[in-house]
Amino acid sequence: MLDVCLLGTSGMMPLPRRALTALMTRFNGSSLLIDCGEGTQVSIREQGWSMHDIDLICITHNHGDHVSGLPGLLLSMGNAERIEPLRIVGPKGTKRVVESLLVIAPGLPFDIHIQELNGKCETIEANGYEIEAFRVQHTVPCYGYSQRIRRMGRFDVEKAKRNEVPMALWSRLQKGETLEWEGRRYTADMVLGQPRKGLKVTYCTDTRPIPEIADYARGADLFICEGMYGEPEMASKAREKKHMTFTEAATLAKMAGVPEMWLTHYSPSLIRPDLYIEESRKIFAGIKLGKDRKTVELNFDGEE
Amino acid sequence: MLDVCLLGTSGMMPLPRRALTALMTRFNGSSLLIDCGEGTQVSIREQGWSMHDIDLICITHNHGDHVSGLPGLLLSMGNAERIEPLRIVGPKGTKRVVESLLVIAPGLPFDIHIQELNGKCETIEANGYEIEAFRVQHTVPCYGYSQRIRRMGRFDVEKAKRNEVPMALWSRLQKGETLEWEGRRYTADMVLGQPRKGLKVTYCTDTRPIPEIADYARGADLFICEGMYGEPEMASKAREKKHMTFTEAATLAKMAGVPEMWLTHYSPSLIRPDLYIEESRKIFAGIKLGKDRKTVELNFDGEE
Repeated sequence: MLDVCLLGTSGMMPLPRRALTALMTRFNGSSLLIDCGEGTQVSIREQGWSMHDIDLICITHNHGDHVSGLPGLLLSMGNAERIEPLRIVGPKGTKRVVESLLVIAPGLPFDIHIQELNGKCETIEANGYEIEAFRVQHTVPCYGYSQRIRRMGRFDVEKAKRNEVPMALWSRLQKGETLEWEGRRYTADMVLGQPRKGLKVTYCTDTRPIPEIADYARGADLFICEGMYGEPEMASKAREKKHMTFTEAATLAKMAGVPEMWLTHYSPSLIRPDLYIEESRKIFAGIKLGKDRKTVELNFDGEE
Repeated sequence: MLDVCLLGTSGMMPLPRRALTALMTRFNGSSLLIDCGEGTQVSIREQGWSMHDIDLICITHNHGDHVSGLPGLLLSMGNAERIEPLRIVGPKGTKRVVESLLVIAPGLPFDIHIQELNGKCETIEANGYEIEAFRVQHTVPCYGYSQRIRRMGRFDVEKAKRNEVPMALWSRLQKGETLEWEGRRYTADMVLGQPRKGLKVTYCTDTRPIPEIADYARGADLFICEGMYGEPEMASKAREKKHMTFTEAATLAKMAGVPEMWLTHYSPSLIRPDLYIEESRKIFAGIKLGKDRKTVELNFDGEE
């Protein structure tokens, strides 16, 4: 089970009742945060989730509205007595930005490991999350992120017997361990069937709708995407500012063949996103307006 | 008329419905802000006031909960097309902190002039505000601020005549100007009576209740003061962390002889400040619980 919470839906600046865009997910006791604008920590509290267990923060890019909440969040994580190291991943420049912001968060009780992305697409493993960072097209280096939870195959008794796996090892192998036993090496695939469909969430914001994004989002159970502007007359501004409109986002979702898209990162000028959703629904029926703390629990097929 | 708004009342970290402690005042088209934690700009919007006209930001000290909202606020002021220079005043170290935070607010359309305080007490003049910064006692250099709006005397026709001031100059002198006319110099005091009682607001937080604070608050119409802890059993923690309790704040108010005190900067552990106000009211009857966006319009005597 993957818990997904869109912590905020505002772009550029936080507004009353519209926090800056950020995404938090929880899986197997480990939380992941994408972006951390001013107020992200308040939205986490409002949602009743814990900051303590955030093991990885992915930064899309280093504009203020995506990182201004970092020092406050880190201070609060310190106050929550986190001591385990924290990883931060982001584009080139992230190290300089985070270290500058830490001027107001000295003496944290945990280490911070910062990894800068350079490639067109990089993969990061963290506590069961497999994260694919893919470069998008904004005014500064910017990445989208797909997170994938892999699901192993079912336990296959016949296969285990065929591979002459001692029964004493079955349950540990089923959990994915690799074991040595009486001079022989046993791997999980000796007792498991084909990997089953896992879970995938793709998140991207602050970008033009380049077709590569649809490729990276393919197979996602949920695609969360910026919808900076709803009004058709804002299309040229979206091009100029390297953002996208609702209909451009809908077109990406259609290309990606995903079942559902949530829009987020609304311009402060977009007071009523609901007035513009119908038009994009004609392009992609599964499009929904994100709203602060919109939450979903994604389950593996057949899982309750 | 001086508009006063306590933008938030939280200490240490922002909470849902309890923003970090900050104060904003408006006088004669110019706004002043004391402290700017994460979320301060949202509270300003919630109050319906404008960020554009903030001409001076006074920082009590450089702990995260008092400055973490600065880069976001400055970005929003830039987006609001402010171009006039902004002054920031704070203790030693403020320049380094603000400049580090500006890593995420590059290219602002206005200049920032930072003034660091060193003395025990320093006076700053800004657009009709006379600000007295006074050093308090925290774990790092920290200042309280009194802001005073002076009020000139009434126009005195007899005095103007006695001083042989040409009638053509009366109205400009009444506004406080100094003029040259036919070889003679005319000053406002030649047409005005004794200065009348002005307005004064004192703000201090993150300090032990040293008696000097009462001296600086004397004559204030409103004294806004930290009340980090309400519970009597927290008195030793307050001493240790260099904060104060409700009753310590009340004692300062009594010593200062002010008519009214608002408490603020509540510890996140203090869920129900209202449970502890009665005890401090026995010491000082004019004590009130600050709450987010508690507002008052202070008027000169006899002014509507």
